[in-house]
Amino acid sequence: MKINGKDYRSVWMDEEGVIMIDQRVIPHEFRLFTCRTYKDTACAIRDMVIRGAPAIGAAACYGMAQGAEAGELDEAAATLAASRPTAYDLFDAIAYFKKNYVGGDPKKVADAYADASAERCKRIGEVGEQLIEDGARILTHCNAGALACVDYGTALAPIRVAHQNGKKIFVWVDETRPRCQGARLTAWEMVQEGIDHALIADNAAGHYMQRGEVDLCIVGTDRVALNGDIANKIGTYEKAVVARENGIPFYIAAPFSTIDFSCPTGMDIPIEERGKEEITDMWGWDGKKVSSVRIAPKAVKVRNPAFDVTPAKLITGIITEKGIFKPQEIKKLKNA
Amino acid sequence: MKINGKDYRSVWMDEEGVIMIDQRVIPHEFRLFTCRTYKDTACAIRDMVIRGAPAIGAAACYGMAQGAEAGELDEAAATLAASRPTAYDLFDAIAYFKKNYVGGDPKKVADAYADASAERCKRIGEVGEQLIEDGARILTHCNAGALACVDYGTALAPIRVAHQNGKKIFVWVDETRPRCQGARLTAWEMVQEGIDHALIADNAAGHYMQRGEVDLCIVGTDRVALNGDIANKIGTYEKAVVARENGIPFYIAAPFSTIDFSCPTGMDIPIEERGKEEITDMWGWDGKKVSSVRIAPKAVKVRNPAFDVTPAKLITGIITEKGIFKPQEIKKLKNA
Repeated sequence: MKINGKDYRSVWMDEEGVIMIDQRVIPHEFRLFTCRTYKDTACAIRDMVIRGAPAIGAAACYGMAQGAEAGELDEAAATLAASRPTAYDLFDAIAYFKKNYVGGDPKKVADAYADASAERCKRIGEVGEQLIEDGARILTHCNAGALACVDYGTALAPIRVAHQNGKKIFVWVDETRPRCQGARLTAWEMVQEGIDHALIADNAAGHYMQRGEVDLCIVGTDRVALNGDIANKIGTYEKAVVARENGIPFYIAAPFSTIDFSCPTGMDIPIEERGKEEITDMWGWDGKKVSSVRIAPKAVKVRNPAFDVTPAKLITGIITEKGIFKPQEIKKLKNA
Repeated sequence: MKINGKDYRSVWMDEEGVIMIDQRVIPHEFRLFTCRTYKDTACAIRDMVIRGAPAIGAAACYGMAQGAEAGELDEAAATLAASRPTAYDLFDAIAYFKKNYVGGDPKKVADAYADASAERCKRIGEVGEQLIEDGARILTHCNAGALACVDYGTALAPIRVAHQNGKKIFVWVDETRPRCQGARLTAWEMVQEGIDHALIADNAAGHYMQRGEVDLCIVGTDRVALNGDIANKIGTYEKAVVARENGIPFYIAAPFSTIDFSCPTGMDIPIEERGKEEITDMWGWDGKKVSSVRIAPKAVKVRNPAFDVTPAKLITGIITEKGIFKPQEIKKLKNA
């Protein structure tokens, strides 16, 4: 992705360690974050310096390379696996590294994973672009953009390609409370790419669907189950239900690395519950620095599930690097 | 309502002018706001010092009393009517004052409106309480509490009464972006009343419905149309669609003053679009004062509809001071 005219990936490795774009301070600041050990990398994943299923996968693979360099491969695998529970790419990447690292330069193994991940997303863009007609108004939830991946994005990859191909498109950007990855990251990617858009409160998505102003929905996913159910950012389920109520196609974009063939259904996917302060407080730019304000009363009780499950029956298709599949076809792809 | 052990209404009138609880600084501060002229009162409604359909109605009626005192009744009616477009109580209150003010003390006329409004909400609580079983888990959206009314609330009135009657209940509080009336006001009312609750991101409501953790939904409304469609805070439509998908009853609570018998359907209700900064910025307590932080990139484009329309087919019943009605029965109530 181009940032201030320079090419970037969301994560890479150099002599200093694993380097990530710090997604906690975008869109207000552009800052790199350096993880000197696999423990730092696991913390950065947990604290969401980096987020998005494919990006988490690549970061974890680089963390494994750090573990290999330190001679602590098993400890690294355990620490990284415990950093976040829902995104399947994390486990896919750890397994990949274990399988492919047979001595030599561990960075090369992780680089190969990251390269393949970026290539898959590019291909998702080319495959998914055919769904987007000239003039289409597309709704997306959360950030499944270049920042969520090594590069290109999943849900945003077809949107990028359609725009590059000269199609006149418009993107409805759900702000995506509680962490507002839509407002902070997707809106920022839209501005960077010059793609026409409108940022909306999550609550407004249904209103525009009802009024006939949304032609299709494309979102990412953190895990696809064998029966075609998917887990994605909290709120995805609501959007899918309301899309179906209004006859609007609802697509998931994901590389094969996000498919968990060992997971029978969506109800078997672990749903992370995150801290109370994500709901009671909001961080942003106070004019001088990133700081936070409290919204809710002090004594309030809170629940904060980070993901929800969208059942296969609400999904029109899953856009992958190998083509677009019906959710019911996922189980047939196991050995594809 | 009790606040710090003292009885309050959301709005009243004394020698100084129209006095309101300043809802922009709750839950962080408790502060009264004085409107010395009907123009001040109209500005306070527009700027949401006071909000919620019945509370807007009472404030407008007191504003009319100020207009009568100033000998500018027609100007006051026009100015107040232009303050906000969606809540029908505003127009109901202006018409009430015009009809009932025949000279004498204008404050008495407005007090009678406010007294009747409070009494209607109390009755809504008694009527609606029968829907709430012991152990019920109730979801509400926005704030249709005592703050949104003169007293008691609409959607929160049955919840208050069920709690007072010793029923063990639990309330899911949608935070209700963009202005977070759920997080700021409903959560504060729940804490004040000692009612068990959890504040959630709006995106999480569907997740808990899907998991069988919501028994019924009760929300307020800004306007009921003749065909039983209703307008309410943005996001209400999504909750209603997802409630039906999961077989969860969806109730509206409203006094007759919110029914617009001259409005054929929900699609005829004007939907207010509010400022961009409600989406790009968030205000809250910075540790010393109420201030705001910016969430979104500077160049972002925004849409911000404040309300949406929930069609009659998604509504289980409308709880009024005169009983619970099917939305299809509204047209029969015209001369009730």
